[in-house]
Amino acid sequence: MSDREHGGEMVDVRWHEHAVSRADRERAAGHRGCVLWFTGLSGSGKSTLANAVDRLLHDRGCRTFVLDGDNVRLGLNAAPALLRARYGEEAAVRFGLGFGPADRAENIRRVGAVADLFAQAGTIVLTAFVSPYRRDRDAVRAMLAPGDFVEIFVRAPLEVCERRDPKGLYKKARAGEIRNFTGIDDPYEEPQAPEIVVDSATRSPDALAAGVIGWLERAGTIPASGTQRAP
Amino acid sequence: MSDREHGGEMVDVRWHEHAVSRADRERAAGHRGCVLWFTGLSGSGKSTLANAVDRLLHDRGCRTFVLDGDNVRLGLNAAPALLRARYGEEAAVRFGLGFGPADRAENIRRVGAVADLFAQAGTIVLTAFVSPYRRDRDAVRAMLAPGDFVEIFVRAPLEVCERRDPKGLYKKARAGEIRNFTGIDDPYEEPQAPEIVVDSATRSPDALAAGVIGWLERAGTIPASGTQRAP
Repeated sequence: MSDREHGGEMVDVRWHEHAVSRADRERAAGHRGCVLWFTGLSGSGKSTLANAVDRLLHDRGCRTFVLDGDNVRLGLNAAPALLRARYGEEAAVRFGLGFGPADRAENIRRVGAVADLFAQAGTIVLTAFVSPYRRDRDAVRAMLAPGDFVEIFVRAPLEVCERRDPKGLYKKARAGEIRNFTGIDDPYEEPQAPEIVVDSATRSPDALAAGVIGWLERAGTIPASGTQRAP
Repeated sequence: MSDREHGGEMVDVRWHEHAVSRADRERAAGHRGCVLWFTGLSGSGKSTLANAVDRLLHDRGCRTFVLDGDNVRLGLNAAPALLRARYGEEAAVRFGLGFGPADRAENIRRVGAVADLFAQAGTIVLTAFVSPYRRDRDAVRAMLAPGDFVEIFVRAPLEVCERRDPKGLYKKARAGEIRNFTGIDDPYEEPQAPEIVVDSATRSPDALAAGVIGWLERAGTIPASGTQRAP
């Protein structure tokens, strides 16, 4: 590009962009980008299932990532106290996320926006959040390109989830130590038209994960393998 | 996994996780994940250079993505008016981002947090934001794992940037139509120890992009190619 340079100073041309498109990225990945949005009660197995699907996709060479509370709570969606320590009072009050309705909506909105970016990058991103409110999930669906949002309802009876209680949260909620806990004193609004429903009380994570993979093959998100299994 | 199922109901076992690690993702990608943080005045060529580097990395088979104003302003870092229309007044006032000091800091903080997630996914993510304040950039550096933050100072004299004025913003700033514009009535704090400095006034984007690629090869972020070029 030496024709653009004269005497050490570039002439004032509009540099042209060689931007890599989403289609370019998906071609390189060998599959489409999309968001697998796992929703369900605490203890329903969202995270376990997301990780099992992630493992299967990764082993097939897909570009994947998992977004969950563990990797957004300390960063993108930090609590007020964390922001206060690093960014001061105004940042804590304005941008820190608690558990009020607006905070929950913003939590899901940010996760949706980030998931959108991963999808645009040609990645299959799996999100594992209770995301109990239909309105918040539907807002994410509306934010994404058509077909990018794959809502996966991880269904399990409350009694099963409460018996599992992997983090001891139901016990605390029943004892009144946690308030506004989904399923106890805050509602879980079931999806009305999810792309996929899985029953985690009656089937193993591996069986359910294989079902999700089959769905993605049939949808054309990922290429079909020689060892396709029934959902 | 039928041994875990009894009479149609799963026994209450702790499902074990098959989580894919960052190392797994980087092995599959064939390179390390990291954040290439381009900083400099408006018109310095950050976006053009980021896209040129992105193209070179993509053509080598790397997993990449570009974060810039175009893909975060309408989503993750939406302005108050956009949030008001979709999420109501409280969301607009609390979470919408304007141009005050706290808003600018939060803008960069969220971009940094998202870039961190992409790096964890084994992606080389390129960010193109003026990011004029040293404190905000250093906070992103501190947020990331050691070595993940590659600060690239795109240096060009203000006169050159103002002559380019690709978006007509300097003209508006000089006319008083835009206030707090970096370089005019708001400071740009140059990086003190950036990993890379490029002079966009005297070299072409392609030459500069080749230099960045050489740096990444020497740093071990990407494998060296047979056609390595001097920086």
